[in-house]
Amino acid sequence: MRTALTELLGVEHPIVGFNRSPAVVAAVTNAGGFGVLAASAYSPAELDAQLSWISEQVDGKPYGVDLLVPSKFVAGDPDSLVASLRAQIPSSHLAFVQSLLDKYDIPVSPSVVDHSEVAAAITPNGAPALLDVAFKHPIALIANALGTPPPSLVSRAKEAGVVVASLVGKAQHAERQIAAGVDVLVAQGTEAGGHTGTIATMVLTPEIVDIAGDRPVLAAGGIADGRQMAAALALGAAGVWCGSVWLSSEEDIAVQAIKDKFLAATSADTVRSPTRTGKPARQLRTAWHDEWEAPGSPQPLPLPLQLMLVEEAWQHIDAAAQAGHEGALKLESFFVGQVVGSFSDVRPAGEITRRMAEDCQRRIAELGGLIAPA
Amino acid sequence: MRTALTELLGVEHPIVGFNRSPAVVAAVTNAGGFGVLAASAYSPAELDAQLSWISEQVDGKPYGVDLLVPSKFVAGDPDSLVASLRAQIPSSHLAFVQSLLDKYDIPVSPSVVDHSEVAAAITPNGAPALLDVAFKHPIALIANALGTPPPSLVSRAKEAGVVVASLVGKAQHAERQIAAGVDVLVAQGTEAGGHTGTIATMVLTPEIVDIAGDRPVLAAGGIADGRQMAAALALGAAGVWCGSVWLSSEEDIAVQAIKDKFLAATSADTVRSPTRTGKPARQLRTAWHDEWEAPGSPQPLPLPLQLMLVEEAWQHIDAAAQAGHEGALKLESFFVGQVVGSFSDVRPAGEITRRMAEDCQRRIAELGGLIAPA
Repeated sequence: MRTALTELLGVEHPIVGFNRSPAVVAAVTNAGGFGVLAASAYSPAELDAQLSWISEQVDGKPYGVDLLVPSKFVAGDPDSLVASLRAQIPSSHLAFVQSLLDKYDIPVSPSVVDHSEVAAAITPNGAPALLDVAFKHPIALIANALGTPPPSLVSRAKEAGVVVASLVGKAQHAERQIAAGVDVLVAQGTEAGGHTGTIATMVLTPEIVDIAGDRPVLAAGGIADGRQMAAALALGAAGVWCGSVWLSSEEDIAVQAIKDKFLAATSADTVRSPTRTGKPARQLRTAWHDEWEAPGSPQPLPLPLQLMLVEEAWQHIDAAAQAGHEGALKLESFFVGQVVGSFSDVRPAGEITRRMAEDCQRRIAELGGLIAPA
Repeated sequence: MRTALTELLGVEHPIVGFNRSPAVVAAVTNAGGFGVLAASAYSPAELDAQLSWISEQVDGKPYGVDLLVPSKFVAGDPDSLVASLRAQIPSSHLAFVQSLLDKYDIPVSPSVVDHSEVAAAITPNGAPALLDVAFKHPIALIANALGTPPPSLVSRAKEAGVVVASLVGKAQHAERQIAAGVDVLVAQGTEAGGHTGTIATMVLTPEIVDIAGDRPVLAAGGIADGRQMAAALALGAAGVWCGSVWLSSEEDIAVQAIKDKFLAATSADTVRSPTRTGKPARQLRTAWHDEWEAPGSPQPLPLPLQLMLVEEAWQHIDAAAQAGHEGALKLESFFVGQVVGSFSDVRPAGEITRRMAEDCQRRIAELGGLIAPA
């Protein structure tokens, strides 16, 4: 297929595969798509090792990274910044999270990692250090999932010949991103997993296409098969940005407990909830959300306080769920879009990529038949 | 174009136009689409007159009706049924609605109609009387917007050779409708106006297509232009069921105050709220919703009590808004989907129909170019 995206990135299929697992990124790229590593949860050393590994796997084929880069950094010592944020978490919230862990009898995992995603994102030692690592590798695209990218990122990317992409959930976002110099807009509909707005992909995509001018627009949210990919192209997108579908891939690093819950879920089983990060993010609905919504439960805190409040608890829940712990399996959840209802088996990420591209092309050919003269 | 829907209904374009204005229904049908009258708010005499008028306008071309037919009727005297429902409305709710009218200084309209949509829907004199009227006219399709149609409706439609359609918001609904004998399933995504679920059209449509077998599936929600129509067909739909787009048509009977608010709205300005009927329904967000969500406001009642609570208040608000009353214009709202953000002018409904069909065909032809050999 040829679209503005395949031309810009030099790929065979206009399919971007966004995932935190280096093996998924490499598999999507090697199948003719374009893998993007969700890198914000990694330390600079981890990211360096992973990008080196991906580069070895893909043999010169292009891939990208996605970071949470705030438009402004908070000045000061990272440790004291994080400490001052922690001090803003009410003790009643800490007690509520502890009471949840107690109620579901969640054991303390000895393997809790001390790396805070919050610290990595907001402090000068965090995102810029990850950016330095990213630009040492032959990345072809850098995406920012946290609002408008700062001018320093855009100018550095332009110098390096790296495409800048950014996620938008409404028309105003797109206008800001275009003014900031973004090359590719990702129109992310409400049905997407993770942080997402309220406007559906069907409505948002053509709206963003109409203000993007010559910039390629990718559709994100609700896309996990060839029919949905063909629909995205019909809406005017130059390609698709898929996140959730890789959670049903063999290469994905999610624990098996999560993959099992995803395979059993329907499209009605997700919820857009602020209880995990402090901003509405779509995820699998479980007992975790019932508890937060029960009468007497505290209101979720704003980002980044809610994320800081719960990130260690989630490490304990994930570890216990993976070990088959009954209470942890009730709470266990992860970010995923409404397409989770279509997951029927776990397949190699390369096969998912090729199948989506083939089915899309077949569907487009079938559509041609609808308008053929009788 | 040829799809399973155009074959089934004998129409030129697979576009269903759903609206409460007889002139919109006739215009869509006369433009080669298929008009469906939203008839539940009418009395039997009104419906009879309107269907006669439509039949005259369309000169044998097909059209349909949509009713709210409950799967079971409540036995007993209609007047006493309505009275007993009214008695269940807490006085604090009545006082809150009155306080809203007072706060916004809404004048009492002398033209309030005594016909209750609730009474028409739930009582034996209501929906069955409307059904009797509908079947006296040459309707080609009957749709039920209120869950599974009762067996009496299905058998009567089959005898008369009338197609039965039904709206579904999740897979379980579709399974029930298929078991009840429905011929056409309308997969209605969360972005649609009116009563709607949480699953987006992009995800819901292929899911319903996969369980519908040979039955045509129409996509509803998020469809107001040719790109969105092409996307719906790409998802596997045999056509589109459009509601909101006609609210931007010349023939629509909405007051000008509402049309003006729609023209100014963005796709982010709708809300799925239970405050108008008691069930979540997407509508334009206004001061009405702010007031219901303010601290200390009562929780909305269930359907049909909430509808009974507010239906007269809305007649006063609509009348005052139409007269340019400042307070009423702040509250003024109506059911509409997220496509409201795309309304840029008021056009004839026939032009909207033809333009959507032409743009869809052109978009499908363009998609073919993406897969053409280089």
